[in-house]
Amino acid sequence: MSQPIRLAINGASGRMGRALLALVREDRRFELVHAVVSAGSERDGTPVFEGLSSGLRYAHGWEAAPAIDVIVDFSGPDGLAAALAHCRAHHIALVTGTTGLDAAAEAGLDGASAELPLLRAANFSLGVAVLTRLLREAAASLRDWDLEIVEAHHGRKEDAPSGTALALGHAAAQARGTTLAEDGVYTREGRPGARRSGTIGFAVVRGGDVVGEHTALLLGHGERVELSHRATDRSIFARGALEAAAWLAGRKPGGYSIDNVVQERERNPG
Amino acid sequence: MSQPIRLAINGASGRMGRALLALVREDRRFELVHAVVSAGSERDGTPVFEGLSSGLRYAHGWEAAPAIDVIVDFSGPDGLAAALAHCRAHHIALVTGTTGLDAAAEAGLDGASAELPLLRAANFSLGVAVLTRLLREAAASLRDWDLEIVEAHHGRKEDAPSGTALALGHAAAQARGTTLAEDGVYTREGRPGARRSGTIGFAVVRGGDVVGEHTALLLGHGERVELSHRATDRSIFARGALEAAAWLAGRKPGGYSIDNVVQERERNPG
Amino acid sequence: MSQPIRLAINGASGRMGRALLALVREDRRFELVHAVVSAGSERDGTPVFEGLSSGLRYAHGWEAAPAIDVIVDFSGPDGLAAALAHCRAHHIALVTGTTGLDAAAEAGLDGASAELPLLRAANFSLGVAVLTRLLREAAASLRDWDLEIVEAHHGRKEDAPSGTALALGHAAAQARGTTLAEDGVYTREGRPGARRSGTIGFAVVRGGDVVGEHTALLLGHGERVELSHRATDRSIFARGALEAAAWLAGRKPGGYSIDNVVQERERNPG
Amino acid sequence: MSQPIRLAINGASGRMGRALLALVREDRRFELVHAVVSAGSERDGTPVFEGLSSGLRYAHGWEAAPAIDVIVDFSGPDGLAAALAHCRAHHIALVTGTTGLDAAAEAGLDGASAELPLLRAANFSLGVAVLTRLLREAAASLRDWDLEIVEAHHGRKEDAPSGTALALGHAAAQARGTTLAEDGVYTREGRPGARRSGTIGFAVVRGGDVVGEHTALLLGHGERVELSHRATDRSIFARGALEAAAWLAGRKPGGYSIDNVVQERERNPG
Repeated sequence: MSQPIRLAINGASGRMGRALLALVREDRRFELVHAVVSAGSERDGTPVFEGLSSGLRYAHGWEAAPAIDVIVDFSGPDGLAAALAHCRAHHIALVTGTTGLDAAAEAGLDGASAELPLLRAANFSLGVAVLTRLLREAAASLRDWDLEIVEAHHGRKEDAPSGTALALGHAAAQARGTTLAEDGVYTREGRPGARRSGTIGFAVVRGGDVVGEHTALLLGHGERVELSHRATDRSIFARGALEAAAWLAGRKPGGYSIDNVVQERERNPG
Repeated sequence: MSQPIRLAINGASGRMGRALLALVREDRRFELVHAVVSAGSERDGTPVFEGLSSGLRYAHGWEAAPAIDVIVDFSGPDGLAAALAHCRAHHIALVTGTTGLDAAAEAGLDGASAELPLLRAANFSLGVAVLTRLLREAAASLRDWDLEIVEAHHGRKEDAPSGTALALGHAAAQARGTTLAEDGVYTREGRPGARRSGTIGFAVVRGGDVVGEHTALLLGHGERVELSHRATDRSIFARGALEAAAWLAGRKPGGYSIDNVVQERERNPG
Repeated sequence: MSQPIRLAINGASGRMGRALLALVREDRRFELVHAVVSAGSERDGTPVFEGLSSGLRYAHGWEAAPAIDVIVDFSGPDGLAAALAHCRAHHIALVTGTTGLDAAAEAGLDGASAELPLLRAANFSLGVAVLTRLLREAAASLRDWDLEIVEAHHGRKEDAPSGTALALGHAAAQARGTTLAEDGVYTREGRPGARRSGTIGFAVVRGGDVVGEHTALLLGHGERVELSHRATDRSIFARGALEAAAWLAGRKPGGYSIDNVVQERERNPG
Repeated sequence: MSQPIRLAINGASGRMGRALLALVREDRRFELVHAVVSAGSERDGTPVFEGLSSGLRYAHGWEAAPAIDVIVDFSGPDGLAAALAHCRAHHIALVTGTTGLDAAAEAGLDGASAELPLLRAANFSLGVAVLTRLLREAAASLRDWDLEIVEAHHGRKEDAPSGTALALGHAAAQARGTTLAEDGVYTREGRPGARRSGTIGFAVVRGGDVVGEHTALLLGHGERVELSHRATDRSIFARGALEAAAWLAGRKPGGYSIDNVVQERERNPG
């Protein structure tokens, strides 16, 4: 490996930011050159890595930022807007997992992808990205097999099915030329009657401290295919974001997804 | 093995009856001595086993029945009433899987168990009986772990959750000093909020030609226990009914369940 | 559907042949026009479908065969040679699952694929074909994750790991630029030491009447992907062979595999 | 809850000791009154809980120990010997997970159990204890079903099968009146032939950072039972040791196992 990638983290004091810092500290692909926290954060100005001689300190903005190859952003709408402005001004690649943007912010991201390499994802797990890709293919190949998605999460989770389960269902529905609005089934209780062919059923398990498990079942006659992802550690999302950053740095402008990373790893496994 | 057990089958032309005949033909523990079909059945009077010299023919009642050790009944309320009368008159053991009885018939069975060995079950799978037993213990031992039950069946099944899933949930609830009425959760969709501690959740999968699968998950902190039963062949119910018949023949009067068979197999596995 | 496909079955009295006949009888895509058994078979000349007016009788060769679109062969080296000669003479498509061929027979098949559409497979399950395809992709995308293959079969199976497990491992190894000869691990007992990175491990379960289950595990840091196939009914192989026959009939000459069927179903799921 | 249990930890600077400290800090059932590290440890004399006002400091022995209800020991043969002497002198309950003892040390522990409550275990996971108990019952009840044990661990594990898998196999063998020496099967490769009835097979998966998974499969005709334990966090062993300590404190002298804890939780789940 030649020069390390010059990395900045936006939202460095959040849960994802801290997970990114813990990984970056050990990851020789990267040199962390800038770490941004909210203005007014008690970390602002303190050293990022205690006990390291690097001397890098948290900043509350981009004014004094050095040269950067890629920014990884898990901040919030305002933090993202500031990072995006810096990326446009300096042609820096941007990986962002910030959600909950309004229409103007969405349009801003879309526009920026004409100028710089920009990768967005709601779930940065490489395993989930691979599962999604495989499910899309299996759902198309085995189009006449019944499809069901089972997910399990810890008991504190408040929504059901999980966003990832719905995203998997959406990918499968699309591969079969339909939609969840038309063919999703979310409840079976009492006497729902025979399963309607072509539907996509969801089943939800809650309890313990399960980080997240998703299984797609393709059920045929006398055989079935089961595709599962199990997460046991929340650090996988930070890990995937760094994979995405390493992949994105130096790429030509465009809007990318985690699926592009997975696809290329498949073709060119370097 | 000494003398074979003299067996009669009531409801011999039904789905379970035919499955029982197929197994009994190969099972040297038993001698089939009587096989009853409905009056008016086209099988009445025809040979039970084509190509065998045994000569046994289907009968439509019990008048001409020879000496019998145990009757296995999968007929219907009327067929069961006739078989029960014959059992009482001749002190014959009775295994029955007939369901849908009215209060009078239920009382009749209860009364009969004072006079003769009588075993009833809704599900004759030995594996399900063992699973139920294990779940009862695990639910009590790991009382503070979250409990969920997932079941999968073919797409033609019309009710949900399955009767067996509900029976498992009932056994677990009882072991924890509660009821499904109080703590069962059958639907999670949209934003149900955090899991309430102590609940028992059900999740339902439908599709393909799945014969029947049930998994109980006990979800703790950093660990979990999963207890599963998978059926791949409907013959298991007939097989279990014959196990029950072999176990019941010659026993003293009383009301028994499939759990008694399993318990004794555990203690005295001979 | 327009005209049914004119189908011939070679090896019609074998286990696969009988399974094919049972399915073809109900499958309106096909018209069965010829069914070949070994010379000397007691079925030779008897009606193929009892109680049907079709009048088709088993034949012991191809002399009197009518016009055929596709032959499905599960016979043996000699039976295959005769069927192949007939295919070449009449430009008939050929699906074959016959194994154990010598080098000359292999060369004959290779040569024939220049003249006629010819599809060979060791395992005709569509589900296994899809699993193989997905595993190839996942093994490449998640190249740095550890890969293990677990398989389960009934207790009478004499070889281990199963041919299908080895084929899955082979596909995965190829996708990673290695071979099972180099990186396959078949035994772990006592103190084998830490897992060598890049290896592909196999684990074998035997018991009961399990038809066949295969799971590939891709094990990463904090997450994993599991890809499984479960067979519960041996008819899936006959079912897959008919899918292959329907796909192959009328195609241009060439050597095809079950993967081609699966690929096209994915692209063009009509 | 009345008075908290006065707890001492022996081996407080080891991996298990540190995990115990992290849990005890939040667990109001206990008051930590003594924490022993090796003589010469750099922690000796430093505060156990930074930032807490409790003032407790690590000690290198038992001389200055206050009144204790129960000692939890994960030290080593010498550390255990010292703790045991202190328990005998003051009638203190002892929970120990120290392994690798010589015959004299083993005899010492056996003797001590006549004088004080003493609980030993190799694996303190409550879930594994429950699984072991359930497997013993299932193996006896379903004695004629084939039994297999599959385990998975991270790639750094050097032995195979895992000690827990062997302990599960041992429990099942005992329940069936046999031994692993006689009926254990650890390798299947090439052409091992048909499964011998009554054997107990082991299958091993290695990879990723799997903390530990064990599944016992009971495989019958047309049905199966699967009993699994999955660990996702090593803290479960510390958690189980504290459960054991809470259970043991104040009990009458005797040798106990983690199974006693599980049994009583089942009977009296308060």
